[in-house]
Amino acid sequence: MSDTYVLVHGAWHTGAEIEAVADGVRAAGHTVYCPTLAGNNPGDDRSSTGLEDAIASAVRYIEEKDLTQVRLVGHSYGGMVISGVADRIAHRLKRLVYINAFVPLDGESLNDMVPPHYVTMFDAVAAANGNAVTLPFEIWREAFINDADLATAQAAYEKLNPHPYRTFTDKIRLSQPLAALALGKSYLNCQQDTAMPHGLPWHPRLSERLGLFRLVECPGSHEMFFSNPQRLAQAVIEAGRD
Amino acid sequence: MSDTYVLVHGAWHTGAEIEAVADGVRAAGHTVYCPTLAGNNPGDDRSSTGLEDAIASAVRYIEEKDLTQVRLVGHSYGGMVISGVADRIAHRLKRLVYINAFVPLDGESLNDMVPPHYVTMFDAVAAANGNAVTLPFEIWREAFINDADLATAQAAYEKLNPHPYRTFTDKIRLSQPLAALALGKSYLNCQQDTAMPHGLPWHPRLSERLGLFRLVECPGSHEMFFSNPQRLAQAVIEAGRD
Amino acid sequence: MSDTYVLVHGAWHTGAEIEAVADGVRAAGHTVYCPTLAGNNPGDDRSSTGLEDAIASAVRYIEEKDLTQVRLVGHSYGGMVISGVADRIAHRLKRLVYINAFVPLDGESLNDMVPPHYVTMFDAVAAANGNAVTLPFEIWREAFINDADLATAQAAYEKLNPHPYRTFTDKIRLSQPLAALALGKSYLNCQQDTAMPHGLPWHPRLSERLGLFRLVECPGSHEMFFSNPQRLAQAVIEAGRD
Repeated sequence: MSDTYVLVHGAWHTGAEIEAVADGVRAAGHTVYCPTLAGNNPGDDRSSTGLEDAIASAVRYIEEKDLTQVRLVGHSYGGMVISGVADRIAHRLKRLVYINAFVPLDGESLNDMVPPHYVTMFDAVAAANGNAVTLPFEIWREAFINDADLATAQAAYEKLNPHPYRTFTDKIRLSQPLAALALGKSYLNCQQDTAMPHGLPWHPRLSERLGLFRLVECPGSHEMFFSNPQRLAQAVIEAGRD
Repeated sequence: MSDTYVLVHGAWHTGAEIEAVADGVRAAGHTVYCPTLAGNNPGDDRSSTGLEDAIASAVRYIEEKDLTQVRLVGHSYGGMVISGVADRIAHRLKRLVYINAFVPLDGESLNDMVPPHYVTMFDAVAAANGNAVTLPFEIWREAFINDADLATAQAAYEKLNPHPYRTFTDKIRLSQPLAALALGKSYLNCQQDTAMPHGLPWHPRLSERLGLFRLVECPGSHEMFFSNPQRLAQAVIEAGRD
Repeated sequence: MSDTYVLVHGAWHTGAEIEAVADGVRAAGHTVYCPTLAGNNPGDDRSSTGLEDAIASAVRYIEEKDLTQVRLVGHSYGGMVISGVADRIAHRLKRLVYINAFVPLDGESLNDMVPPHYVTMFDAVAAANGNAVTLPFEIWREAFINDADLATAQAAYEKLNPHPYRTFTDKIRLSQPLAALALGKSYLNCQQDTAMPHGLPWHPRLSERLGLFRLVECPGSHEMFFSNPQRLAQAVIEAGRD
């Protein structure tokens, strides 16, 4: 059976960086789209693009292609976006899949869910870079892509783009808790993901907000899109299927 | 070396549903028995069969076959039963193996160890079904057999039988803590098992009650008997051997 | 690229017992040394050798061979030693790798990080054995090498040597927190390691003391040096590389 997937990238990424995983899902016979969110395209204004802009760009993408029965997958920051999309156009969706992604409550920002020392770091970087945030390579290498060799970590780092910080500080509006949405929900936990430091882990801290959800786990870091896209694609299918 | 195993099924199952795992253990040269507990046989009275009846049926099975040096393995609810059996006929046993199974204290019921919202659900279902409990398919599919495809989840669900609720509400009598029993003890934790929701996990919450025990883990859900019996059989051997 | 590794064994071991892992690392083209610490050599005085003696012996080994850019790896008790070495000769090191190893704060002893019932047991054993400690086989088999078969567990146990208890009770002197050292840091967590019982796990309890660190995990027990040296060698490389 051919299912329809929309993969929503995380911060600092575009749709291009997640195409390797999409190809793995396509190889199983599914149709997969990888839009780039407003704020992460080459010419987008990093200083002013906010969370609503990013959500609206994903809604528009799905509506313009008239997609239905969508398995909507979000990675990391992409969890904020798919949560907003689900709140707006649930009727077009079949299931939500969070890949070590943020699961917000109404009125929460991404920054409300990260450790305080990240906020301090982001604030300083954004203040010096026109409200765009980047990640120091050392943190990227050790805590985000700990399962790759150095060459892979460096090559991936060079593909990242400065991220519009307002999408981290804007508070999301949700008309109801995500747990109440009549959609399938899955949480895909990459087991060596230390992007959220211990004490404030992705799972189960954020996954439990989904209410009844399907847990899928696979070995790997936060950035399996680069370090092991084939294995991640397999896990996406296990999380996304009925 | 050929060891003797007795595998005790969980709620809603019979011995037949765990034969695939038994075959995997037999393939390594061991002798394996899969009795069906009182209360889960086709004609058994679901309204009145209690925990003592189930324990007594397993004791009788082992005694009638005159089994000794038994590696007694219990899955889920089967942990209640093997705990009672060990308290009665420890001299016939070599080791206890709990597969994401309940490890009771004296005077505890299974319901005392599950989250309150499960008890509420079970109470309602049992009240409407002559004191027999069943599991809604949605919970089965998402939280019990999250690692299988839909067809496997559905086929397995159709094999389940209504479970006598008294075995969940009866309090067990144990003459001493399980940790004090002079038997080997192993806990086999299937790592993506979310049948016990987070905050009240199988391991280490229940495993630690065994005192010194051997931990064995394998990837999979609560229902690897259906989703991956070969891998589970390998783990059973790692848990059951000396 | 050929890197230089120094592997520091745990309590009850010598360098010889970790040679199988060293061979796996060498097979990838690296140079690997496995010194035996003061206190664990055949003729060493178990009653008086202390933590400083063990640390000094490792420092001397590295200095005499004039090693630089060292990836210094410590297992279990070896974490105490590499922490002391790093505090003394950081300029010769490139990265610290802790394999389910102790990460001390200034003024802490190994015994300060283990569960109280271990200290009680160690105290009794040391008092009866000239201040040398050994491990009962049952604990070794169930909690240290739970992933091996009995023959492997027994053969490994026979290779262990009585350990000088002062290295467990001496408090380490560190001139600064390990997190402040300008070295790469990795924590390698063997996922079924129950040598530290639940509630006081190796990771993240001790790993977080490293500050920013790279997490690498692999399936296995505390004693993969015996049960699965090839897999552990792979993980050591993933933890030790730049």
